[in-house]
Amino acid sequence: MTVIPNLNIVPFVSVDHMMKLVLKVGIDTFLRELADVVEEDFRRWQSFDKTPRIASHSTEGVIELMPTSDGTLYGFKYVNGHPKNMKEGRQTVTAFGVLSDVGNGYPLLLTEMTILTALRTAATSAVAAKYLARQNARSMAIIGNGAQSEFQARAFKAILGIDTLRLFDIDRSASEKCARNLAGQGFAIKICDSAEEAVEGADIVTTVTADKQYATILTDNMVGPGIHINAVGGDCPGKTELHRDILLRSDIFVEYPPQTRIEGEIQQLPPDYPVTELWRVITGEQQGRANDRQITLFDSVGFATEDFSALRYVRSKLPSTGLYTELDLLADPDEPRDLFGMLLRCEAALV
Amino acid sequence: MTVIPNLNIVPFVSVDHMMKLVLKVGIDTFLRELADVVEEDFRRWQSFDKTPRIASHSTEGVIELMPTSDGTLYGFKYVNGHPKNMKEGRQTVTAFGVLSDVGNGYPLLLTEMTILTALRTAATSAVAAKYLARQNARSMAIIGNGAQSEFQARAFKAILGIDTLRLFDIDRSASEKCARNLAGQGFAIKICDSAEEAVEGADIVTTVTADKQYATILTDNMVGPGIHINAVGGDCPGKTELHRDILLRSDIFVEYPPQTRIEGEIQQLPPDYPVTELWRVITGEQQGRANDRQITLFDSVGFATEDFSALRYVRSKLPSTGLYTELDLLADPDEPRDLFGMLLRCEAALV
Ligand SMILES: NC(=O)c1ccc[n+]([C@@H]2O[C@H](COP(=O)([O-])OP(=O)(O)OC[C@H]3O[C@@H](n4cnc5c(N)ncnc54)[C@H](O)[C@@H]3O)[C@@H](O)[C@H]2O)c1
Ligand SMILES: NC(=O)c1ccc[n+]([C@@H]2O[C@H](COP(=O)([O-])OP(=O)(O)OC[C@H]3O[C@@H](n4cnc5c(N)ncnc54)[C@H](O)[C@@H]3O)[C@@H](O)[C@H]2O)c1
Repeated sequence: MTVIPNLNIVPFVSVDHMMKLVLKVGIDTFLRELADVVEEDFRRWQSFDKTPRIASHSTEGVIELMPTSDGTLYGFKYVNGHPKNMKEGRQTVTAFGVLSDVGNGYPLLLTEMTILTALRTAATSAVAAKYLARQNARSMAIIGNGAQSEFQARAFKAILGIDTLRLFDIDRSASEKCARNLAGQGFAIKICDSAEEAVEGADIVTTVTADKQYATILTDNMVGPGIHINAVGGDCPGKTELHRDILLRSDIFVEYPPQTRIEGEIQQLPPDYPVTELWRVITGEQQGRANDRQITLFDSVGFATEDFSALRYVRSKLPSTGLYTELDLLADPDEPRDLFGMLLRCEAALV
Repeated sequence: MTVIPNLNIVPFVSVDHMMKLVLKVGIDTFLRELADVVEEDFRRWQSFDKTPRIASHSTEGVIELMPTSDGTLYGFKYVNGHPKNMKEGRQTVTAFGVLSDVGNGYPLLLTEMTILTALRTAATSAVAAKYLARQNARSMAIIGNGAQSEFQARAFKAILGIDTLRLFDIDRSASEKCARNLAGQGFAIKICDSAEEAVEGADIVTTVTADKQYATILTDNMVGPGIHINAVGGDCPGKTELHRDILLRSDIFVEYPPQTRIEGEIQQLPPDYPVTELWRVITGEQQGRANDRQITLFDSVGFATEDFSALRYVRSKLPSTGLYTELDLLADPDEPRDLFGMLLRCEAALV
């Protein structure tokens, strides 16, 4: 048998290990710490090499690669979005990712990111809301009660103290699942019969539905003064959730404009429509919420730096938890240039 | 413990399994079959969604993502190039890749691609040479005798019948390693003291050196009529191997012009300099070699479709060989939208 020295090995976090990691750290602590890392990376926005994600669209969905680098580490996520998957017993969104050393190009971590994406999306939404929602916000409507929804609720509770939820989904069983999963975790929860009912009196409205088309989850009349909208579900060309009129009444905050203009709610607006970059609010360079009557909109599409933050956060937890396995992913002959010789020695060992 | 149903699982081919797979199929058969798949995919060039690879450059090297899709399958490769790695005991080039189902976005295969890249690069070079080298070509100079070199030699023997090798490397121990590794495999091998000496009388010249700068491995006076140049090493902006004058005397064949104009030898030429796409030669739409005095140049940089071909070829071999393991890469709750519930159930099972 061939000996497998260390350079071969890439730590791998499976779905099972990710669940155990989240539970070991604690869901709330995990979300809070992750939000801190996400915020930290937004603060040093200019140190990242940024590019809109590379999408491969098909009739049924999209597969995307989301790379970024801070000059020391390089990360990328593979993620798909297939709204019809659900009906076939599959996830709408699955993902995995890799963190690498820029200096030598070797991967340092391979991890599942389906669960991690839900956590990082929720953490990012909560970071944005910390700067954009009213200080005294306590109640949130969640429209679309699928895979992401409970994570959003937990992040908004852990980071902003949201304790009242108003749920709506066109499929009532999704709302019931969401309410059941969040029971006993300190929320007052109401399942609503319509989006209209759900947004009534809510300080924050999270839209996180999945549909491969222009949808209108919220119409203009449903949005009152002072509300913060956390629009998560519209994240592809041709896939939006908000009526255009809402956008015109809101102050719009985005992650990375070159990507959001293609994928976000603002694809409905002219390409030069003014938006504010979230990182500038976080650094204090630009204002977030100005008053209690303003409508703020976080037009989230998910950006590569957030996954980078999640990858480096997970990596930081591995030594202390040991929740990973070692993957024989990289060829490592004794002499680097002797790749073919490694094959010959494997052959000799097999005979 | 959580049950792991099938949808969780992605077949994984480790380095060890890849070596065993190549040896089980046989190196020559593997190269020939892989070349057939590469050629097949060049033939249906127009069915691929193509984009230049996405490169993240640093002072030490580059990390690249190479995605493509034929509408049914989606593949991408992660690959780095760090010429200084060798001195630290690491590979210049390491890689891994994923093949997915376009219909639902789920990965179907994760595999090491360091060895596979060497095989697919060599197979592609041989396919190109089949159309571009003189029919009676029997001898090949290989300049740069690192990790890729033996694979090139074996592919050219298996596919074109090349049986005479003239090796040169600035590091003689690399040539000695190459000659040692190829001993007893039907080659007449000569280690040369200079590139000039190596190309003397060679029908084909393969350049496959690694340097992060404009290098001049071949100068104009070294290139006689009728030669085919297989230029593999120049594959990054600012990283070339051939003197510009050689390009002006050659007929140049490339993989995907938008990528090669950035990365290939032709980055030294004006952006509208005429080149021929290899796929057009393979389909018979355009001429390859026209006569025995013509100098042909395959300005190879490596394109995503070649990795796609390699991924689908490897996948086709898994059921019969069983040379893979099962990776718990994808979250698969019993109900797709119940991702959070899966976490709760994991918690309940742990207590
Ligand atoms: N912005 C980001 O960073 C980010 C990250 C992850 C996911 N997403 C997006 O979030 C969305 C939700 O993802 P998920 O994994 O929870 O999907 P999911 O399929 O698990 O759940 C979507 C839910 O939306 C419901 N729904 C569909 N149309 C609706 C409508 N008109 N009104 C109310 N409910 C409706 C469905 O019944 C379903 O329960 C997707 O569109 C996904 O692409 C965005
Ligand atoms: N075109 C493609 O599809 C493709 C695919 C894989 C690798 N590559 C490129 O091929 C090159 C070789 O890859 P590798 O894995 O064999 O690298 P390696 O580092 O293992 O070997 C490179 C060899 O080139 C030699 N060399 C450097 N400068 C030289 C010179 N001036 N003259 C003669 N020899 C010289 C080095 O001594 C070394 O032995 C790299 O530049 C890589 O990026 C291209």
